[in-house]
Amino acid sequence: MQVGIDSFAAAFDENSLAVNPAERLRQLVQQIEHADEVGLDAFGVGEHHRREFLDSAPAVILGAAAARTQRIRLTSAVTVLSAEDPVRAFQNFATLDLLSRGRAEMIVGRGSSIEAFPLFGFRLEDYDELFAEKLDLLLTIRDHEHVQWSGKHRPALTGQGVYPRPVQNPLPIWLGVGGTPQSFVRAGQLGLPLMVAIIGGEPRRFRPLIDLYRATGMQHGYSAEQLKVGVHMLGYVADTTQEAAEHAEALGGVSRISFQMNAASLPQVKMMRAIDAIGARVLPALHQAETDTGK
Amino acid sequence: MQVGIDSFAAAFDENSLAVNPAERLRQLVQQIEHADEVGLDAFGVGEHHRREFLDSAPAVILGAAAARTQRIRLTSAVTVLSAEDPVRAFQNFATLDLLSRGRAEMIVGRGSSIEAFPLFGFRLEDYDELFAEKLDLLLTIRDHEHVQWSGKHRPALTGQGVYPRPVQNPLPIWLGVGGTPQSFVRAGQLGLPLMVAIIGGEPRRFRPLIDLYRATGMQHGYSAEQLKVGVHMLGYVADTTQEAAEHAEALGGVSRISFQMNAASLPQVKMMRAIDAIGARVLPALHQAETDTGK
Repeated sequence: MQVGIDSFAAAFDENSLAVNPAERLRQLVQQIEHADEVGLDAFGVGEHHRREFLDSAPAVILGAAAARTQRIRLTSAVTVLSAEDPVRAFQNFATLDLLSRGRAEMIVGRGSSIEAFPLFGFRLEDYDELFAEKLDLLLTIRDHEHVQWSGKHRPALTGQGVYPRPVQNPLPIWLGVGGTPQSFVRAGQLGLPLMVAIIGGEPRRFRPLIDLYRATGMQHGYSAEQLKVGVHMLGYVADTTQEAAEHAEALGGVSRISFQMNAASLPQVKMMRAIDAIGARVLPALHQAETDTGK
Repeated sequence: MQVGIDSFAAAFDENSLAVNPAERLRQLVQQIEHADEVGLDAFGVGEHHRREFLDSAPAVILGAAAARTQRIRLTSAVTVLSAEDPVRAFQNFATLDLLSRGRAEMIVGRGSSIEAFPLFGFRLEDYDELFAEKLDLLLTIRDHEHVQWSGKHRPALTGQGVYPRPVQNPLPIWLGVGGTPQSFVRAGQLGLPLMVAIIGGEPRRFRPLIDLYRATGMQHGYSAEQLKVGVHMLGYVADTTQEAAEHAEALGGVSRISFQMNAASLPQVKMMRAIDAIGARVLPALHQAETDTGK
C-alpha cells in the first residue's frame, strides 16, 4: 500500500491570521521535498479559487516540487475538471510528467471548489454533464495524440495534436469521488482508479460502493489491477497506522492511503514533524503488516 | 541595461532528430539555473502547441526553474494571450511570482503560435479583437482583486475574486510586438513596457515605431520610466556585445536585451558555454559601456 499526503495551500493559519503567501508556498515545496526524503509515495496539492487559498494553479506549484524531488509521485488533489479546459489540464500535467520524469498524476473531481464555476463561466447546475463531457475529452487526449472530439461545453477538436506527450503512457488519472453511487459506477465503467474521500464517519460504510465499483469494472472487462482503490482521509497521523491497516482491510484492499493535512496552514515545524512521523512509523508499520499478511 | 535569454523547448535537435523530452526539459531548467548563477537578469520560455515543441505550459516549466534559482527574472516569451483565458494566465503567473518571491513576468503577444487558435476554439480572423479584449481583462485582473468585466469572447465576471495575488504589485506585463504600428500605439496608450522582436534586418528601422510608442505613452500621461523598451533578438552571443550596445543607442535607449537561443535544441554543452559567454563577456562589457556613458 502506498502512503501519501494531500495538502491545500491555505492562506491563513490556525488562528485565521494571514500568512506570507510566498513563504507559505516555499514551505509547501519544502514539505514535498521532505516527504520525498523520508520515502512517502505521493504528495497531492488541492485546487481552490478563493481568497482563503493560494493553490489555484497546482501544476505550477508541483512543477517547483518536481525540480526538488527524486521519487515521490506528484498529483492534483483534486483538479476541478468541470470548470477546466481538458486540453490545458492535460498539457499542464504532461509537462509536469516530463519535468518529474514520469511522476505526475491527476485526480479529477466533479463538484469540489464550486467557486470555480462562476469564475470560468460555467453553470453549477450543469456540473454532472460538464464533468462527464470533460472527462471524456481528457481521456480521449490521453489515448490519442491527434484528437477528434465534439461536445456541448467546449469547441470541437478536428484532429489537432495535443502536446507535449507525457513520459507515462497512460498518464495516471484517478477519479476522485465522495459518496455518490453514480460516481463509483462511472469509475468502474471507465476502468479508472478510484480515490475515495472519507471525510467523516466510518470508512466501512463505503464498502458497498467500492464493491459496486469493482463489480462494474469487472463487467466492463477491466482487471483487478486496473481497478485500484485509494483512500483520502483526514488524519494527523499519530495513531492512524493501525487504523489505516484496518480500514484497508474493511474496504477489501486499498492501493494508496493519503492523509489530508494543512486545511489551515499549520506551523512548518509541526508539518515537518508529522511528515517525519509518517516516514518513521507509519510506512514501516504498514509495510510490516503487508509482509505479515503476504500482500 | 538588463540582459536575458529567451528559449523555446524544442523537441528536435539541429539535425531534426527527436530528443528525449524529459531530458530536454531537465536541460532547460539547468540552463536557467546556470543563467542565474552567472548573473543574467532574465530568462524567457516560449509557448507553442505543436509537435516540434515541449513548451505548451511555460508557467509549469518556469515553476520548476523558480525552485532552483535565486535572482533571475522568469518570464513567458511570449504568452499566446489571444487563445488563453486571462484568469488562468494571471493565476499561473501570480503563482509563479509567489514561488519565485517576486521574479515573474509576462510578455503577452497577439499572433504568435497561431496553431493555438483552432486548438482552443478561436478564429484566427478575430485575432486582434481577441487580443485587445483579453489584454483588457488581464490588466483589469492585475489592478483589481475583485473583477467586474464583460466582453464578447469570454463569460463575464461580476465581482469574483482572482487568486492568488502576486508578490509584485503590479505584476510586470510586457507587450510583445513585431512590426505592426498599431501594436506600438496600443502599448503606449496602455503604458505597458514594450518588448520588440527584431528577428531580421536592421534594428534601427524600428526607431520610428519606438518613437511612436514613446510619444503615444507620453500623451497618455505615462512617465519615461514606465515606457520601457526591451529588445528580443536572434544571436549566438559571440560578437554581439558591441552590436547590442549600438542597437540600444540606435533605438533611443533599451532597458533589456534578450537573446533568442535554442529554436532548435542545441547540444547542452553549447548552450551552457553560450550562457557562460554572456555572463563572462557580454554583461561586463555592457555594464562598462553604461558606466562610460553615464547611463
